[in-house]
Amino acid sequence: MGKGITSRSEDYSQWYNDLVIKADLAENSAVRGCMVIKPYGYGIWERMQAILDKRFKETGHTNAYFPLFIPKSFFSKEAAHVEGFATECAVVTHYRLKNDGSGNIVVDEDAKLEEELIVRPTSETIIWNTYKGWVESYRDLPILVNQWANVVRWEMRTRLFLRTAEFLWQEGHTAHATREEAVEEAERMLEVYAEFAEKILAVPVIRGRKTENERFAGALDTYCIEALMQDGKALQAGTSHFLGQNFAKAFDVKFTSKEGKLEHVWATSWGVSTRLMGALIMAHSDDQGLVLPPKLAPIQVVIVPIYKTEEEKANIDQFVDALTAELKGMDISFKYDDRDTQRPGFKFAEWELKGVPLRIAVGSRDLQNGTVELARRDTQTKETVSQEGLAVNIENTLAIIQENIYQKALSFRDSHITEVSSYEEFKQVLENKGGFISCHWDGTLETEKRVKEETKATIRCIPLDAKQEEGLCVFTGKPSAQKVLFAKAY
Amino acid sequence: MGKGITSRSEDYSQWYNDLVIKADLAENSAVRGCMVIKPYGYGIWERMQAILDKRFKETGHTNAYFPLFIPKSFFSKEAAHVEGFATECAVVTHYRLKNDGSGNIVVDEDAKLEEELIVRPTSETIIWNTYKGWVESYRDLPILVNQWANVVRWEMRTRLFLRTAEFLWQEGHTAHATREEAVEEAERMLEVYAEFAEKILAVPVIRGRKTENERFAGALDTYCIEALMQDGKALQAGTSHFLGQNFAKAFDVKFTSKEGKLEHVWATSWGVSTRLMGALIMAHSDDQGLVLPPKLAPIQVVIVPIYKTEEEKANIDQFVDALTAELKGMDISFKYDDRDTQRPGFKFAEWELKGVPLRIAVGSRDLQNGTVELARRDTQTKETVSQEGLAVNIENTLAIIQENIYQKALSFRDSHITEVSSYEEFKQVLENKGGFISCHWDGTLETEKRVKEETKATIRCIPLDAKQEEGLCVFTGKPSAQKVLFAKAY
Repeated sequence: MGKGITSRSEDYSQWYNDLVIKADLAENSAVRGCMVIKPYGYGIWERMQAILDKRFKETGHTNAYFPLFIPKSFFSKEAAHVEGFATECAVVTHYRLKNDGSGNIVVDEDAKLEEELIVRPTSETIIWNTYKGWVESYRDLPILVNQWANVVRWEMRTRLFLRTAEFLWQEGHTAHATREEAVEEAERMLEVYAEFAEKILAVPVIRGRKTENERFAGALDTYCIEALMQDGKALQAGTSHFLGQNFAKAFDVKFTSKEGKLEHVWATSWGVSTRLMGALIMAHSDDQGLVLPPKLAPIQVVIVPIYKTEEEKANIDQFVDALTAELKGMDISFKYDDRDTQRPGFKFAEWELKGVPLRIAVGSRDLQNGTVELARRDTQTKETVSQEGLAVNIENTLAIIQENIYQKALSFRDSHITEVSSYEEFKQVLENKGGFISCHWDGTLETEKRVKEETKATIRCIPLDAKQEEGLCVFTGKPSAQKVLFAKAY
Repeated sequence: MGKGITSRSEDYSQWYNDLVIKADLAENSAVRGCMVIKPYGYGIWERMQAILDKRFKETGHTNAYFPLFIPKSFFSKEAAHVEGFATECAVVTHYRLKNDGSGNIVVDEDAKLEEELIVRPTSETIIWNTYKGWVESYRDLPILVNQWANVVRWEMRTRLFLRTAEFLWQEGHTAHATREEAVEEAERMLEVYAEFAEKILAVPVIRGRKTENERFAGALDTYCIEALMQDGKALQAGTSHFLGQNFAKAFDVKFTSKEGKLEHVWATSWGVSTRLMGALIMAHSDDQGLVLPPKLAPIQVVIVPIYKTEEEKANIDQFVDALTAELKGMDISFKYDDRDTQRPGFKFAEWELKGVPLRIAVGSRDLQNGTVELARRDTQTKETVSQEGLAVNIENTLAIIQENIYQKALSFRDSHITEVSSYEEFKQVLENKGGFISCHWDGTLETEKRVKEETKATIRCIPLDAKQEEGLCVFTGKPSAQKVLFAKAY
C-alpha cells in the first residue's frame, strides 16, 4: 500500500495535510474553508465529546441549545466583542430562492430580511439576551449551561481542523452572583480542559493567562492551555474567559441579591473545538501515520488473521471469537479485519496509518504454539506473547501506551522550553530550535507587537505557576515583574 | 404554585404552548422562528439522541459531519429537490460586517460572496457531491452514514418544537450497489424509528408509505410513521426515503459493479427531528403538565422530604442516602429535592408539571412506620408502601408506567381510526371525532387535492399492512385498489 505521506522533515505542513486526508479523518468540501469530517475522524471527535460532556456534567453543568443566528444589532452592544468578530462573520440577508424564468436558481430580492442575521461566530450575545429572561433573584443563580454547536468564522486562510470557516465546538456560558464565584468557575473549567488534554489526549499543556492583547473580545481575563507541536510551534488548545459584568451590562441582566440590592450578573465562557483534532494529530503522529492514544482511539485493537486455507481460517476465527468476547466484557474496542480482498501486509500498513494502538496478528503456527504477535503502534515494536492472559495483557499494554505517548510528548515539550536573557538569544532559539521561550517582558502592548512583527512570535501566556521574579525585559531592558512564554503558534 | 396552564378542552393549542414554556422545555428567541431549547427540554432530547444513536450504530451506521452551507448551484441539480426547498431557504450573501463610521454596524457590501450559500435545509446535495469522491467500486459500498445537525427552513408560521425555522435533527444518507439493498435499508430504518416511537416514546405509530404528492422532494418512495395526538390530529414522526438513483445522477456518482459495469449508485435518506419533542408532549400530557415515559425522563424519581425540625430532616437524609445509593446502582435517575426555600406542596406541583414519573414523599411518621408515599404521575394515584424492597418496587413501577402510558395512547389511537364509505360520513367523522379515517381513494392527485381544500385533511399514508381490497373511492366513486388513511395533521 503506497501511503503517499510526505515526511515531517521534508515538509511538516504537507505531512499534516497528507495525514488528515490519507487516514480518512477529514477533507475539504465544495464550500470554501468548510470541511467534511469523515467517519473515522468523527469517531475520534465523538470520543472527545463523550468524555468532556461527562466532565461538564460532573461539575454541575447541563446542556441547552441556542439559535444559530444572531440579530446584527446584538453585535453592537458589547464594543470590544464586535471589534473582535465583525470582520469574519457570515451574513444572512435573504430567505428565499427562486427560479429566474430561464431555469437558473437565484436569490429572491423581494424576500429580504428586515434585519440581517449573523451566523454565530460565538454565542455570548444571543445567550446573554436570553439569560435576561431567566434571572431575577440570586436564587436563579448560578446558571451553568453548555452548548455543543457549529460556529462560523469567515477565515481567509484555512487548514483542516486547525482553522476552518465552520467548526464544531462546545461553549459553556455561566452566570454568577459574585466576581469570586465567576473567577473560580473560569479557573475550574480551565483545569477540566487541562486534565482532559493531559490524561485523555496525552498532550501536556501549560496553564496560563493571556495578555490583554491576546484576550477574547469582551473578556476581563482569558485563561488558556497551550500545547507544543512536533515542529516547535505552540497551539492554543482551550480557553476559559472571565467576562466580568460586560455582557450583563450590554444586555441588562440584573438580579436581586440576598441583601435586596439590584446588581449586574457576573459571567464566564469557555470552549474547545475540533481544533483539538489538529493538536492530537500533530502532537503524536509520525511519518508512518497517526499515533492515537488508546483512550481516544475508535479502534483500540485490530486483529489480523494469517492463513492459507479455509480450515486454518476457521480455526483462527474460533480463537478470535473467544478473545473478542473477553475484550467486549472489558470495554476494549476492536476490529477483526478478516477481509479476503486484501493481504495482511496491506492491512498492517492501513491500520498503522490509522493509528490503531495495538495490532494482533495470528496464524496457524501461533495457534499450535499458543501465541500471537502483538505489535505496538507507538514504539513500532512487536513481540510474540502467550495466548494465556492475552486480554489482560492487552488491557495493560493499552495503559502503558497511553502513558508512553504522554511521556514522550512531555519530554519533547520540556526540552523545548528555553530561558533566554537577550533578544539575540531569543531570535536564535526561535530560529533554530523553536518551542516556548521563557523571558522577561516589560508588560507593554507596544513591545509585544514589535516582537510579533519582527519574529512572528507571540506571547502564548503568562503561566499560572510563574514565580514573581523581577528582571529586565529582553527587548527593551525595562523592568519586568515576571517571565512570560513566547512562541510561534498555530 | 399557580401553574397557569390553559386546559386542553379550553384551547388545545394554547395548552401546548403553555406546557412547553411552563415546564421549561423551550422558549422563543429574539430571532423569528428560532427557539431556545432549555436545559430540561434539551435533557429529554439528549436521551432521544443517545438511544437512537445506539440503534443506528447497531445497524451498522457511523456518524460524520458535512458543511452547514451549500453552494446555491447544487440546488439546481435535482429538479424536484429544488422545487421543494427553494422557497424556504436562508441565504448567506456576505461575509463581513463593518462600522459605518457613525457607530452603526452594517453589512460590508464590498465583501460579497462570489456564489451565494444556502444554509442547509437538508443535506442530500452537499453529501452526494461528497460521495462522488468516495465511491469507485462496489467494494466502497454500502456507505452507511448519519449526521446529527441543525438545519434551517424559513417557515412563515412557527410553533415551538413542531415547526421552527431552525431545528435539530439527524439525517442518515446511505449509498448502495442495488435497488433492492437501498429499499431494504429505507424499510429497516423506518422500523428503527417505529420501534423507538413505540418502545421509548410510548407513542403508537402507523407505518406507511406517502402518496406521490406527499413524498420528499427527490424521493421515489417515502416511508413514514404517523402518530395521533390527543386532539385527533396526526403528526408525522419520522420519514425514510428511497431516493432511487436521482441524486447519484444529479451528482454523477457511479461505481464499477462486480461484473465490471459502470452504474449509478442507489440512495436512501432518513431523519427524525426535535419535532419528536412535540409528539412526546402532545401524546401523553394532561392539564396538570407533562407526562413523561420513564425511558425518556431526565429525572425518573423525585424524593421530597416532609419535616419540621433539623433533627427530622437529618433522619430523612439518612434514609434517602441509602435509597439513592441503591437507585444509582440500578441506573435509575433521581432528584432529592430538599430545597428549604419551598414548601412540599409547591414541589409536588412543580414536579408534576415537569412530568417526573414517580414521586416519593417521606416524613417522620413514615420513618417510624417503615413506609413512604409513592405517587404515580401517569395515573395521579398515590399509595403508602413499605421501605422494604423499595428500590425494586420503584424499578417495577417505572416499567409499569412506561407500559401504561403506551397502552393508553394505543387505545386512544385505535379508537380513533374510523372506516367510512361515503364523503358525508368522512366529513362528519373529521368534524366530530377527528383521528384517522380509513377509506377508499381513487389514486389521483386531483382527488387528494380537492379533499385537502375542502376539509384540510390529507392522506397521511398508505399503511404498510393494508390489505389489497378493491372498492370505490368515497369521493369520486371510481375504482380503488386499497384503503388509505386520511387525517388533519400537524
